[in-house]
This record gives sequence, structure tokens and C-alpha cells, in this order.
Amino acid sequence: MALVNEHFLKLPDNYLFADIAKKVNVFKVSHPHANIISLGIGDVTRPLCPAVVEAMHKAVDEMATTKGFRGYGPEQGYQFLREAIVKNDFLPRGIHLDPSEIFVNDGAKSDTGNIQELVRWDNSIGVTDPIYPVYIDSNVMIGRAGEVTDGKWNNVTYLPCTAENNFIPQLPDRRVDIIYLCYPNNPTGTVISKEELRKWVNYALKNDTLIFYDAAYEAYIQEPDIPHSIYEIKGARKVAIEFHSYSKTAGFTGVRCGYTVVPKELTASTLEGERIALNQLWYRRQCTKFNGTSYISQRAAEAIYTPEGKEQVRETIAYYMDNARTMRHTLTSLGLEVFGGENAPYIWLKVPNGESSWRFFEQMLYNAHVVCTPGVGFGPSGEGYVRLTAFGSHEDCAEAMMRLKKWI
Amino acid sequence: MALVNEHFLKLPDNYLFADIAKKVNVFKVSHPHANIISLGIGDVTRPLCPAVVEAMHKAVDEMATTKGFRGYGPEQGYQFLREAIVKNDFLPRGIHLDPSEIFVNDGAKSDTGNIQELVRWDNSIGVTDPIYPVYIDSNVMIGRAGEVTDGKWNNVTYLPCTAENNFIPQLPDRRVDIIYLCYPNNPTGTVISKEELRKWVNYALKNDTLIFYDAAYEAYIQEPDIPHSIYEIKGARKVAIEFHSYSKTAGFTGVRCGYTVVPKELTASTLEGERIALNQLWYRRQCTKFNGTSYISQRAAEAIYTPEGKEQVRETIAYYMDNARTMRHTLTSLGLEVFGGENAPYIWLKVPNGESSWRFFEQMLYNAHVVCTPGVGFGPSGEGYVRLTAFGSHEDCAEAMMRLKKWI
Repeated sequence: MALVNEHFLKLPDNYLFADIAKKVNVFKVSHPHANIISLGIGDVTRPLCPAVVEAMHKAVDEMATTKGFRGYGPEQGYQFLREAIVKNDFLPRGIHLDPSEIFVNDGAKSDTGNIQELVRWDNSIGVTDPIYPVYIDSNVMIGRAGEVTDGKWNNVTYLPCTAENNFIPQLPDRRVDIIYLCYPNNPTGTVISKEELRKWVNYALKNDTLIFYDAAYEAYIQEPDIPHSIYEIKGARKVAIEFHSYSKTAGFTGVRCGYTVVPKELTASTLEGERIALNQLWYRRQCTKFNGTSYISQRAAEAIYTPEGKEQVRETIAYYMDNARTMRHTLTSLGLEVFGGENAPYIWLKVPNGESSWRFFEQMLYNAHVVCTPGVGFGPSGEGYVRLTAFGSHEDCAEAMMRLKKWI
Repeated sequence: MALVNEHFLKLPDNYLFADIAKKVNVFKVSHPHANIISLGIGDVTRPLCPAVVEAMHKAVDEMATTKGFRGYGPEQGYQFLREAIVKNDFLPRGIHLDPSEIFVNDGAKSDTGNIQELVRWDNSIGVTDPIYPVYIDSNVMIGRAGEVTDGKWNNVTYLPCTAENNFIPQLPDRRVDIIYLCYPNNPTGTVISKEELRKWVNYALKNDTLIFYDAAYEAYIQEPDIPHSIYEIKGARKVAIEFHSYSKTAGFTGVRCGYTVVPKELTASTLEGERIALNQLWYRRQCTKFNGTSYISQRAAEAIYTPEGKEQVRETIAYYMDNARTMRHTLTSLGLEVFGGENAPYIWLKVPNGESSWRFFEQMLYNAHVVCTPGVGFGPSGEGYVRLTAFGSHEDCAEAMMRLKKWI
């Protein structure tokens, strides 16, 4: 008799953003003429930049000829892209990686969800809280997160990040096998200093902990000295896997391309104490369950490393960061407590008057026709906050801020 | 201490095709001037058809404008594509599906690998043997396949398909929880009749077994009355998940698009006997660990359902099937035993003189400079066979056959 994987049944029915979409749809039905502005889901809106568009057309044309046609690519991505990544994203920061340490994928969500396959099902995990739901949900599905008690998974160590601790998570007071970190942070929009990140690397080295480091938003860092990669910290290659995405860097949410770094020095232990290199294991995993991302998407990604591509991507990021500035300015002037938005495209807003995230979400939707994301959807420490994203147009952002001014 | 998932260590180091590539490279180094023809990996070579190329250019142009830009699509695929699938791939065969039963993906390899996440880790599995390695390997990684004894996994029931039983697998003599079937078959190129397939559906209904049915090669079926979908059999919606791919249908191995059908009637049981709909569970899985495939690839897939697209795809398939005919004809005239190749792009060749698959692979490589795939790489019952693919050009296929004539 086929038995279902019952761990799935422990999960809330819907993924957070599906839940929000449903609530927005209910509103739409009762308010068919409302002009809703979404500052909710972290999805970009600006068109692909010309360098990318040109590269994609060229790739499509190649595929239309017998000579230029490409079938299956290498599961870990084309060499041309992996070399461009090594040369442009790491070398300028003094990080020397080999292309075989880069695994091109169809976006960071897949790999941050799948990476947990490499470790034993009963390893303990730690997450900064609030956090991108995929980290925990993917562990729930395999049984690693345990059971929910009081809104928390009992095999997950939550490391609260709130206004009270200035969004700096404390090292766990016990040994944790796997730690998920995301900087610049989704959802809070805050960053980590090198000094603070070093503490994590040292903790991992000392405790034989693996760090899954999500750097999907690193291109939004504006200030110097904020680390763009965990490998800027000495020793990190021995303990960390890093995830990158072109989704927010180059507007690839609909194009699907990102990459994961698994350094060759990185190992985990067998029960008997033998050290196993995770690079080879991840390669085996990708060869078995993945067939590479679209050739056209990989050529698109390569194009952002050309001088024109770099300049165009910079412009788009600057455009979104203008929104972040507008939002910070308006919300602060309304007397609200606002975090993030300086080195990240997210604003983390403290809900006034101690109201709940979902209540504020609904008030904003019904009174201002603006969609945000309830902070509690990202974890217990997100209660009392909402996330706003900077990914809209200038016009929508300005209009949304005007409505919030009127409403609040 | 981070502990590795030791199930990975039970796997052979390399995925089959990586192994073959390595051996071919060794040959290349010692024979730098040899003109190698590959009839090994099942990868297409014909360019994308004009309807697809046009649709992709158009989609890229849309993404280059503010108005036409698309970010994240629905995780289960765009409605336009799911509707085209329902209308073109199923309705003409009398199968009524709802678009919500279709999940667009980045290729069948991902989903055939990931689908096992839905069932308990200790469910037993059955596979026809030989078989596409992903089915077993993905189960090994989670521990479900058990351990290897005498070249077989001890929690896997092998259902031999050989010349002796005319490649018709027998129903297992014990209850098996999950069965993988692939028709037209990779690697043997053989097909299943409706009558035989009905036995499997009835077995599944009786034993509460789940069937994972891989129909990736259905577009190659030439004869009438061969089922293109398991849902042509009554009752199959209650027991079967079906996988489709555009890779071999429309040459999308480098474009990445396919789809999975999870009917709403399909359920699996909890330990307590509650029936759980797998459609909702798979939706939850995809929302958590997948972000849809490229918009451009989805528009490309949609284009193959236009009248021009259909005609062009038919031509390409006819082109490859010409190769299959050439190969069957030549090999048969050489007195070799040949199977498949009539409703599938694969020829399954019995190695003469009782030699092993790998030995014959090497002889063919060194004597004829032609690459095949050793049958034993697909499972124990593949020993003594090799697979040849019809995906090359007419010229290469003819040349390869001439060389085999000279050599054998």
C-alpha cells in the first residue's frame, strides 16, 4: 500500500505567498474597481536589460541552426558561465574559486530547498528568525524540523532578529548542525558586518556546523565593508555553501537562473568520522535530479558580466533602491519605525500600536489598497512587523506612499 | 556536528552518462584524429523548429518591455500552456483533465527524481529492468532502495524485460507500493499494449499501489492502438502520476520544459488509513522548492501546439524515425538481434557471442569509433545488450552503420 509522506501534512496548507494571493483575490471580488498596488511578493517589475535581451535573441538564433543547436548542457552549467562567475563575482573580492565549485541552477529557491538532501535527516537546524520560509519548509518535508509546538518546530533553533537586538542574531547556546543565514536579509532588509559574520564562521569551524548562506541580495549592498560573500571570511570555505540568484540582481524571476557555490574543501562527517567532500555529492545529486537550466537563460546570465550588462544592471538596481529611499523617507516621516532598505530592496516596518502582522496587512489592503507581507509569515519573530518591497515602479511606489500618508 | 546523508555514498560515484563520457575522453586522448559518432546519450541534434524559434523571440521581446515583462510565473506553470496541454495532448484521446492537474516543469528528469518525496521513505518500489537510472538513484538517496546485494537493491523489486519474455514485464508476485513504468521504453525502445497496461492499472487498484508512469517518448509512437497515456486505461487516474517531456518531442533538451500530471482523484494513505490527495501535496512541494520554468521556455512549448508547430515537430520526429529504420535494417541484415526502434527512438541490440555490455561498448568505440550505451548501465537485465539512439543526423547514422558493417 502506497503510504504518503506524512511530514508534508504537518505543513500549513499553503505557501505564504499563495495565502496572500488568496486574501487579495477575496478583496478584489468585493472591490472590483480598486487599484491595488503590491508591495508584497519580492518580484521585480523592470524589463530585462538590453544586453540580456540581445544575448537571448542570439542564443535562440543559435538553437535554430543545426550547427548552433545545443541539447543537454552540463548539469552543473556551461563552462562559459561558470568562468564568468568566478572572474566577476569572486575574484575582485579576493576570493579564488574554481569553476568546478560553481553549480548553475534554475534559481536559488530550488537549491536552497534541495541542499538539505546532502545531510542526515536527523541533523539539527538553526535559522535566524524571521526567515525565508523555504529553509524550514524543505526541512519539514523530510522530517528534520520535527513537530510544531507553540508555533515553533521542535528540532529548529530559532535565532531571533528584532528591533530589540538590532537584528543581530546571537550565536546559539548549544551545538547546531546546520545554520541557515541570509544576508542582506530577506525579509528584514538588514545586513551583517564582517565582524559579526566572522563569529558565525568561527562557530561553525569550532562545532563542525554547516552554514547554508543565501546571498541572493548581495548586489543591493550600497555601503563599503559589508560582505558580499561569506567567503570573504577566512575559513568559510571549510564550512559554507553559498547561494546566488540572478532573480533580483538582473530581473531573472521569469528567466530562471542562479548558482550555488560548494567549495572543494567543504566536508561533512559520516557516523564513523570519515570526512566526505560535499562538492562531489552535490554534483551527483544534480546529475541525478537536474538537467541544467535553459541554454538561453545561461547566455542571458553571461551577458550581465559584459561592461554594458554590468552598467545596465547597476541602473536597474539603483532604480529600485530609489524606491527604498522614498519608502524609508515617507514611513519615517510618519513616525513609523523602519528597518532595512539601505543595502537591500526590503523595508521591514514595525506595526504601530502593537497590532498583529495579519491585522495590519488587512487594514493596509482595505484602507490603502496596498499589499504588504505579514512579518509573522516569515517566522515567530516576524510578528508585529510587515515587509514592503522596493521592486515596483517609481510611480506606484510614490502613489502607495501617498495612500499610506493619508491612511496612517 | 553536520553528518552527511550516507545513502549517497551507496551510489556509484558517477551517473552512467558521466561514466561513458569519461571513457570516450580517454579514447579521444589516445586517438586524437578519430571521428567519433555518438549513438550513446539520448540527446537530440536537430535545430528547434521555426514555430518555436518565433515564439521564443517574441517572448524575449515581451520581456524587454515594461508592459510585457513577466516575473515569477505560477509555480505549476502558466495557464496558457496548461490549457494547451489539456486540449492537445489529452482531449483528442478522450481524456478529460483539468489544467490544475498539470504541473509544468523544467524537464522530466527533475520530476521523476523528485516525485518520490511524496511517499514514505520505507515504501517498497518496483521497476521494470533495465530502466532509466534516475528512478532508482533518486530512491537510493533517501534510503528507500535499501542496500546493494549482488548488484541489486534489496528494497527494489526488479521486473526483468528481456528477449526471453518479449520485453513484457510480469506483475510482481508480491505487493509493491510504488511501480515505475516507462513506455515507450527507455532504454529498450519497446512499447506496451493497452491490454498489458490494463493489467498494471488493475494490479495497482487492487494493491493500492502508486504507478509513476513515464511517457516521455509517447510522440514517437507510430502504430495505432499503442497507448500514449496511461489515462487511456480506465481507473488509471486513481493510481497513476504521468510524466511528459518536450525534450524528445520538440528537441527541448537544452530549452528545459516538460510536465507532470497528478490527477485530483489520486490518493495515498496515511498510516491511520486516511486518504490524502497527492495533487495538493505536489502543488505544495512545487511551491516550496520550485519557481516555475522560464517564461520563454513555456511560450516555446505552447508553440508546438499551433498547426505549424505540430507539423514541424512531426517532421523532426519522422526524421529521427528514419534513422531508427536505417539502423534496424542494417543491424538486422548483419544477423544481429534488434529490438525497439519502431515506436521509439531507441534500438536495443543484443550483444553477439554472449559478450558483456561494457566489453561490446569498448570494442565498438575502438573498432568503429561509434559510441553506444552499455545496457547493464540501465540495470542487471540490461547485461548483454547495448542501446543505440536515433537522434543523430542521417549522414552520421548512415556512416555509423557503414562502420558497423565493416567491423562486425
